[in-house]
Amino acid sequence: MTENNLKAFPGSSGNMITKNFNVGPSHVDPDVANDIQQAIDQGILSISHRSERFYQLYAKARTEIFKYFSLPADWQIYFVGSGSDAMESACRGLIEKRSFHHVNGNFSERAYKFAGMIKKDAVLNKRDELSGFTGEPDAAPEGTDCAFFCKTETATGVATSWDYIKAFRDKNPGVTIVCDVVSVVPTEPLDPNMCDYYFFSVQKGCGMSAGLGVALCSLQALEKCKRLSEAGYDVGANRALITMDEFAKKDATLDTPNVLQIFLLGKVFERFNQKGLVAIESETRAKAKQIYDWLETSEYFYAGVSDPALRANTAVSVKFKDGVEEEAVLKAVTEAGFETGLGYGAALQTGYIFAQRRGNDPCADLLPSSVAPHAHLTRTLP
Amino acid sequence: MTENNLKAFPGSSGNMITKNFNVGPSHVDPDVANDIQQAIDQGILSISHRSERFYQLYAKARTEIFKYFSLPADWQIYFVGSGSDAMESACRGLIEKRSFHHVNGNFSERAYKFAGMIKKDAVLNKRDELSGFTGEPDAAPEGTDCAFFCKTETATGVATSWDYIKAFRDKNPGVTIVCDVVSVVPTEPLDPNMCDYYFFSVQKGCGMSAGLGVALCSLQALEKCKRLSEAGYDVGANRALITMDEFAKKDATLDTPNVLQIFLLGKVFERFNQKGLVAIESETRAKAKQIYDWLETSEYFYAGVSDPALRANTAVSVKFKDGVEEEAVLKAVTEAGFETGLGYGAALQTGYIFAQRRGNDPCADLLPSSVAPHAHLTRTLP
Repeated sequence: MTENNLKAFPGSSGNMITKNFNVGPSHVDPDVANDIQQAIDQGILSISHRSERFYQLYAKARTEIFKYFSLPADWQIYFVGSGSDAMESACRGLIEKRSFHHVNGNFSERAYKFAGMIKKDAVLNKRDELSGFTGEPDAAPEGTDCAFFCKTETATGVATSWDYIKAFRDKNPGVTIVCDVVSVVPTEPLDPNMCDYYFFSVQKGCGMSAGLGVALCSLQALEKCKRLSEAGYDVGANRALITMDEFAKKDATLDTPNVLQIFLLGKVFERFNQKGLVAIESETRAKAKQIYDWLETSEYFYAGVSDPALRANTAVSVKFKDGVEEEAVLKAVTEAGFETGLGYGAALQTGYIFAQRRGNDPCADLLPSSVAPHAHLTRTLP
Repeated sequence: MTENNLKAFPGSSGNMITKNFNVGPSHVDPDVANDIQQAIDQGILSISHRSERFYQLYAKARTEIFKYFSLPADWQIYFVGSGSDAMESACRGLIEKRSFHHVNGNFSERAYKFAGMIKKDAVLNKRDELSGFTGEPDAAPEGTDCAFFCKTETATGVATSWDYIKAFRDKNPGVTIVCDVVSVVPTEPLDPNMCDYYFFSVQKGCGMSAGLGVALCSLQALEKCKRLSEAGYDVGANRALITMDEFAKKDATLDTPNVLQIFLLGKVFERFNQKGLVAIESETRAKAKQIYDWLETSEYFYAGVSDPALRANTAVSVKFKDGVEEEAVLKAVTEAGFETGLGYGAALQTGYIFAQRRGNDPCADLLPSSVAPHAHLTRTLP
């Protein structure tokens, strides 16, 4: 491998700017940095969460998000500390006895583990990493009352198609469906008929820093949680859906929330609404195609997810081709300004994720436009 | 009541600056606003929580806080979304069967409610609001394995003395003690022998915006949680003490944490350490005395907490004297730039809280130095 070869790597001929290409938080949007300054100037960091000003911020974020996804008025939004918080709230509030977990990566597995930790009868439906769920949907085991999907596995770039989830729903009526859309929002629609509960966090496609999780909960799901609570189940305390709902009705939270992030999220979705979901989805799909097309011609890499039907639009995993000097490529990647992490585990892996988030990603200038103008780069999970 | 009378109200002759005097978040420290700018400039908002840079931020916050409170090395620090998060983690992880709750306000009552919601045998030991725990400590009921205290009730300014908690501990050996120090940190020592678990949030005395809770957990408490987990108890999932401990050992968190706030907290405690706990405690005590002394001479108010032994140093509740035209005073207060909230409930109350936080509070200039240079003002809870 020569120096010339390495220069062909996206960004390697650019300036020495270190950019975050981790699978975790995205690079924070410059607009968001401006919003933070505005929050400081307006004194938003100090406002009470029991004040009209805060209720307006809450309502603003709710209204913009509901508008963006065309969610019905009987759904509700809850703000928690992280996506995992929203995941635990679902496990406690929406599983009566038996949950059925479609697991093909770290995050779908986390929901399975959480359900087990809180003493539910969690049933595993596992696929290999970089593989997933296609074809005829699996029937839920007898007694299942809640099913979990991870729409896109953040760290491996495997997607489950909405068609699969829809077919599962049709085949298993009466089963509550929870869907992790952390690595999806804002690039795909969230159909209120397909799932009963969606959750995401803000440090991915929203281009914000971490520290806020968002749960979108249907009336049906909320009523199930109420039934479970009345039947004596432990549905949680601080993050119980019924507790959060009581306060959400007043555009408020029980505990002191992340006021800054709720303010920022409202601003972020206001901008998303200016562009619209259709445009953002279409742009994301086109850019994903650019990346996958580029991989077909790449000298170093190939797509980690071999089945095109399982490839995500927001996270593209890649693997080294045989014979590639991985160390040299890694060095070139670093020198090109890509800050690559070790993913969510300790072991060094021979793989990467290009996790594109959405159109206005500031890392665009690091990649040649012929390749993928809006891509993130990181190691995959061990 | 004449205009002259009203001008005697602290700040009423000052500029028309609206300042936050809510019992919830304090006014954010200008140093913190500068730190946020630094975080943006240094790209901290975008760093991965699985990167060396983040581990260093975590370690920095831990080290500064441990140094400030002289905590032993076998204690651990966990970062959660709020004080209430840390409260629920304690209820799940540290109550085996029966908990004993010293309740004299909203927050001590919240722990009692949480314990009940998660199906523990929570025993209530209740005092009236504005009253509290003094004298010979109550013996815990037979079978109690965990006791809860709220050192200072945020919204009513009632304190429980450390002497009382120590005497309770001596009288009830073997009982795990959890202490809510949300409205205490950083103004008093946290004795690792007196309690097994302390928790606080950052939007009070730390002068930060909300969205981060901190739990300080002894080895003994952690081992109890491990025992409960091994015995089959549901000790939590995302915020289980044993889960958080596994990651805290690596200066990490399971879910994506509030990286910005952890960075800020490290900077804030670095400054606290420059001043030192002894100086901050002594300054706070002296200022509290100024406020209570001023109340003795006030034309409008008197101290809400009548027993001097129960008066908090960080939150001073005041009540209107008979015959005072409350509406007129409220108007003067607002015109003087005090943004008074409705506390944590809906009803308008004839009471206030002066909640001083610590020495470098930016609201100082609103109050005449002869009174209380570092005070917050708000309504009390209904």
